[in-house]
Amino acid sequence: MAAPLPVRALTDEQKYELMASNLHKVGCTVKVLLADLHAFLDADKAPEGVLEFRAQYYERVIRALLRSVGVDLTNLEFVRGSSYQLTPAFSRDLLRLSKRVSIHDAIKASSEIVKSTGEPVMADGMYPMMQLLDEEYLDVNAEFGGLDQRKTFALANGAMPRLGLKVRAHLMNPMVPGLAEAICMKIAKAFCPPRETEGNGILAFIQHVLFPYWQVRSDDGTPVISVMLKDESEPTTFQSFTDLAAVYQADSLTPQLAKKIVEEGPVALTSSIRREFESDAEWQAVTREAYPDPTPKTKKKKNEVVVLVV
Amino acid sequence: MAAPLPVRALTDEQKYELMASNLHKVGCTVKVLLADLHAFLDADKAPEGVLEFRAQYYERVIRALLRSVGVDLTNLEFVRGSSYQLTPAFSRDLLRLSKRVSIHDAIKASSEIVKSTGEPVMADGMYPMMQLLDEEYLDVNAEFGGLDQRKTFALANGAMPRLGLKVRAHLMNPMVPGLAEAICMKIAKAFCPPRETEGNGILAFIQHVLFPYWQVRSDDGTPVISVMLKDESEPTTFQSFTDLAAVYQADSLTPQLAKKIVEEGPVALTSSIRREFESDAEWQAVTREAYPDPTPKTKKKKNEVVVLVV
Repeated sequence: MAAPLPVRALTDEQKYELMASNLHKVGCTVKVLLADLHAFLDADKAPEGVLEFRAQYYERVIRALLRSVGVDLTNLEFVRGSSYQLTPAFSRDLLRLSKRVSIHDAIKASSEIVKSTGEPVMADGMYPMMQLLDEEYLDVNAEFGGLDQRKTFALANGAMPRLGLKVRAHLMNPMVPGLAEAICMKIAKAFCPPRETEGNGILAFIQHVLFPYWQVRSDDGTPVISVMLKDESEPTTFQSFTDLAAVYQADSLTPQLAKKIVEEGPVALTSSIRREFESDAEWQAVTREAYPDPTPKTKKKKNEVVVLVV
Repeated sequence: MAAPLPVRALTDEQKYELMASNLHKVGCTVKVLLADLHAFLDADKAPEGVLEFRAQYYERVIRALLRSVGVDLTNLEFVRGSSYQLTPAFSRDLLRLSKRVSIHDAIKASSEIVKSTGEPVMADGMYPMMQLLDEEYLDVNAEFGGLDQRKTFALANGAMPRLGLKVRAHLMNPMVPGLAEAICMKIAKAFCPPRETEGNGILAFIQHVLFPYWQVRSDDGTPVISVMLKDESEPTTFQSFTDLAAVYQADSLTPQLAKKIVEEGPVALTSSIRREFESDAEWQAVTREAYPDPTPKTKKKKNEVVVLVV
């Protein structure tokens, strides 16, 4: 039996990839940074032993996601952070930068990105400094990230010129509140107050993942989401999030009905990716290495007597 | 006319080299770290453009100092920090270490070493982390430094095991208070209260530089310092600092007479080094590059009329 496609493939990464696919479609060259060393620096994300497998895992998921929305992958470049972040040139630039960035500013920049467990460590400050140099070493015109990156982007605007480096354009996508929660089969418990569209994880997922997804999947660029509203016998179709939000505010679309859209959405989103995953033994093996079972193998209990019967 | 041998050669470096020469004489293998990247990280010490020349300058001075006290240089190794501190292995270890060292501890460790000009920068915290890894990468059993290193050494004791690295022995030499002041032809103004031997820069120089120097220079290992005491017509000779401190406390050796010892000491100390420097055009050239004249070339004043008379 194949392991299920991990649900983490359905969180922010997917949203970013939809954005990346749009950038790509309008003629931008897109470089996807597989930030393996950054993941290592961030206390809670990836222990060193699984870094290589996580990078392979993410590359496979992102490629599959992009293929599923029809992106031509030949002009898309995947780069590992570790492929250049340990070179002498990068290390020297990191030292140069470290003289120009105050500890206060570095920690502030990483405060929304790095999960600090206790008092700040030096890695928390090195994380955003390396990200600044990434822009230079990847030779990009713009960097695209979540709204949680805004302090790092602000640091870049201030620090890059001090090092004689170009300031890049910074594109930001709104974060989807409580998204991981919503997807992890906890949709029923997800924060979704009636009539309230602000800070609503369920609606945010519909807005930032499902509508863009159906938009890139449709032939004429018009997204369509179909839902059975309260006290209606026929499904209503929506072509924009604004229309859908209006009926939510009017409570014709109840939290329960909105959650149903989200429950059904990922099934459609991942059907092609899931098929790809299930027919690819190598990808499955990479996944097992990238996310090893945290429960230790059952050991013989102390004083337990094991008898071999022949 | 040759540039004078810069007086900085006569400060703590000399004291350390005397110690190093003793370690070497008792059979230790001594590695002298020319910490060029550390000098760069320390805000006030060395701008990047002169790093290479400073390293060459220090290596020449230290070699000359050791030769002047009869040390065999064949078994003494000089290593530039930049020769290994920018390698991928070192950079990866620096990232590993940065997850285990709190910003608080890193800044505390560097507080007595790095001259911070204003609010702490990331470089201040990277400085001691790199020094910890130096011990591992230079594969030494012990590190020797001034008392100002004690917080870095304490950090090493705590952090090295967390990274699975050996804790090294740490040897510390007392710092000579106000030494640079004392040598820079400001001996007359140096802090030297009568009868007071604690915190006295002049006496510290006699104890930590002149006595050890005359000890390594003498054939039988007995240092001798000769001085004309107050109300005496013949010079008195001292073979230990304890005896000399006793007459200082009794005020037979007045501050003025003690200063005279220090004024004359460096002349003897540097005579052979000075000869070497003055006959070595390459060393002189390196010195000019390492310590470029900070005063800009005199320019013609505005509105000044210059007339060529032929």
